[in-house]
Amino acid sequence: MISEIICVGTELLTGDTVNTNASYIAKRLMGLSSGSLWQSVVGDNPARLSESFLTALKRSEIIVVTGGLGPTEDDLTKETAAKLLVLPLYEDTKTLNDISSYFASKNREMPEMNKKQALIPKGAVILENEIGTAPGILFDFELLKSQGKFYSQYKTKYLILLPGPPREMKKMWETAAEPYLKEKITDNALISHYMTVFGIGESAAAERLGDIVSGNNPTVSPYAKNGSVTFRITASGKTVKEAEELAAPIIEKMKELLDGYIVGTDVPSMADVAVSELISAKKTVTFAESCTGGLISKKITDVSGASEVFNMGAVTYSNEIKSLLLSVKPETLKAHGAVSKETALEMCKGAAELSGADIGVSVTGIAGPGGGSEEKPVGTVWIGVYSKKSGYHQAERHLFGHGRANERDYIRELTAETALWKVITRLREEK
Amino acid sequence: MISEIICVGTELLTGDTVNTNASYIAKRLMGLSSGSLWQSVVGDNPARLSESFLTALKRSEIIVVTGGLGPTEDDLTKETAAKLLVLPLYEDTKTLNDISSYFASKNREMPEMNKKQALIPKGAVILENEIGTAPGILFDFELLKSQGKFYSQYKTKYLILLPGPPREMKKMWETAAEPYLKEKITDNALISHYMTVFGIGESAAAERLGDIVSGNNPTVSPYAKNGSVTFRITASGKTVKEAEELAAPIIEKMKELLDGYIVGTDVPSMADVAVSELISAKKTVTFAESCTGGLISKKITDVSGASEVFNMGAVTYSNEIKSLLLSVKPETLKAHGAVSKETALEMCKGAAELSGADIGVSVTGIAGPGGGSEEKPVGTVWIGVYSKKSGYHQAERHLFGHGRANERDYIRELTAETALWKVITRLREEK
Repeated sequence: MISEIICVGTELLTGDTVNTNASYIAKRLMGLSSGSLWQSVVGDNPARLSESFLTALKRSEIIVVTGGLGPTEDDLTKETAAKLLVLPLYEDTKTLNDISSYFASKNREMPEMNKKQALIPKGAVILENEIGTAPGILFDFELLKSQGKFYSQYKTKYLILLPGPPREMKKMWETAAEPYLKEKITDNALISHYMTVFGIGESAAAERLGDIVSGNNPTVSPYAKNGSVTFRITASGKTVKEAEELAAPIIEKMKELLDGYIVGTDVPSMADVAVSELISAKKTVTFAESCTGGLISKKITDVSGASEVFNMGAVTYSNEIKSLLLSVKPETLKAHGAVSKETALEMCKGAAELSGADIGVSVTGIAGPGGGSEEKPVGTVWIGVYSKKSGYHQAERHLFGHGRANERDYIRELTAETALWKVITRLREEK
Repeated sequence: MISEIICVGTELLTGDTVNTNASYIAKRLMGLSSGSLWQSVVGDNPARLSESFLTALKRSEIIVVTGGLGPTEDDLTKETAAKLLVLPLYEDTKTLNDISSYFASKNREMPEMNKKQALIPKGAVILENEIGTAPGILFDFELLKSQGKFYSQYKTKYLILLPGPPREMKKMWETAAEPYLKEKITDNALISHYMTVFGIGESAAAERLGDIVSGNNPTVSPYAKNGSVTFRITASGKTVKEAEELAAPIIEKMKELLDGYIVGTDVPSMADVAVSELISAKKTVTFAESCTGGLISKKITDVSGASEVFNMGAVTYSNEIKSLLLSVKPETLKAHGAVSKETALEMCKGAAELSGADIGVSVTGIAGPGGGSEEKPVGTVWIGVYSKKSGYHQAERHLFGHGRANERDYIRELTAETALWKVITRLREEK
């Protein structure tokens, strides 16, 4: 089915908000029957909103709209859709009750203006909002037809209006909109898998894959992000099984060609892989962080269940704390500096010994923008790894971000991903 | 000037990538002379790409396009634009040299296919790519006119093609595209300020502001994110000075009406405010984190210069480490559990004493999805604050995310922001 996404909101046009709603819905549509062919953003302006809706009604079978369902006068999404489809609005008693219960549960009076959110276009399906006040609206054109409403000028089968706040939107998509669509859509199957590699550039990886990247079914397309390259492998077939059977041999071949660089297939993140491989190896890890300032520990604990393999992270931002917590010798710091092989080596071993973890990883570097020198430019990072069982104890120098300024976040991100990758490769080496 | 943004890339349509390019460009356009009125996303498909370009050429004066400038056959942005504007492509020698030097600097041979990136539409301005291979292309319609190329059917004055990778795109925008536009555009001035409040809901804050939110010049519009509400105050005038003079009294009035909740005006983040207020108070801070797992330390060290006020963060994910590092008494943990007032109190004081910091903040809670109970549901978080100078030593219970499941990131984020807000309010109390 041809789908498209319209996100309504001035905060998107001004750039105040990053449009995570579009990527979320796009991903979910991929899992349904097709991705989106267009995405657009418009403001809360009646004329431009109508124009966007009309364009979409003429070309797309599924239209998902987010935003503009709030209680203020500016919120026009529902009103505009109802007007275009010539459906009157009525006050829905259950919805009004839900909204006032929402306020009651927070010990607050319902503001008068929220009443507007209980107005529903006649014949539309109401999608309940479990965590906010704006209900969603689903126009099922087949259902409208059964009520005598014909729209032969439009291509659309489903027009779905969801609230703008991402948490409310996602919840409503998952609990109400998607189940509704899933029940109705039962034709062509489309499946996708994602293979992530690390430590190899996009073109080098693509070159290794050769013809595979120009295939048609499955299609294989790379995208690079923070040092990783992820290949999306998408196959279509009459059934999910048929599509999977087309993808499987390609994925096997790719595993051979990219051996040694593969983080995983269909894995949510580097940290997820690290945690699950730690769990199966029955090992624990600890991090001693200087320039990343907690980012690696944060990434590990993003993974629910991390407590099985991680009990301590030390953010040691000064020399004194490096000595106090991690037993880095003051002489080492004096002779070689905090950003040095020697310090990195003492940090990772110190952290492992303090926490009792099997593997200790340390990072110490210059994330910038200040603090660089000719000898140690911004982006210089030492990463140390200590493994109790094997006695492995090494530190490696990296230069992230090409030594450029204003790359602080990038350097920190790349450092953290590399540190996690080193945990994974260490586990695989010692298996 | 009427502006619009087109982002090209299948990875956006599939939702694999969040469209941060659009929000970045939108924000920069706001600072130039107007925001964007439309944003759209299309895939690397010649027909749909042409259609999007044509729609934009007919309605917008500035069009910024990102993506599709890569070396592969799929990358069609430049070719499509050149075709629509009937401009032949030529191989630009300097650009070709730049690309091969790029590869040389990485000790790699230039792949044959990258030659395509040196093809430039005749009459276009080349925007140098300092950190990647794809040059940007700027079509200045006034300049094209001077070369005998007329496009009276289009409204466009500038069509700008930028590479898709955010780092390359941003760098090019800042060093090449924006300076070019700034020199040309010299009419109406538009300014924006952002006031962020915390600890008060969007509607409650808006109600306090009353008429101010329905004003026309300046306009004041709120958006809520992770517990904060940010008001954008936008004023227009003939000159920047005139616009600023319209905004100033409104901002003053807002400060009065929202007193006690204001994080700051035109501040990049809660962590930035915490760091700068710590610096002016000449105080240091330390964090003892359990459920946030390093996120608070990460946020503080996102701020360049944090080392002045922060020397240690302890991620204590197990009871043993809480006792070992922060001197939390095993009896306390046994009697009250890790998620308790008593543990939070001992954690913040223990961290402050270990690190020597003036203020210690601790968080211990249940981020979920597992680990909740009736008494302590998922989302229960204790935040402790200890201040050496005043002897202030308190812990407060929070319930984030309405006790719902699948809210791990949200709970962690809200906990971290609240912890930083407590640092700020403590500093302000003790001033």
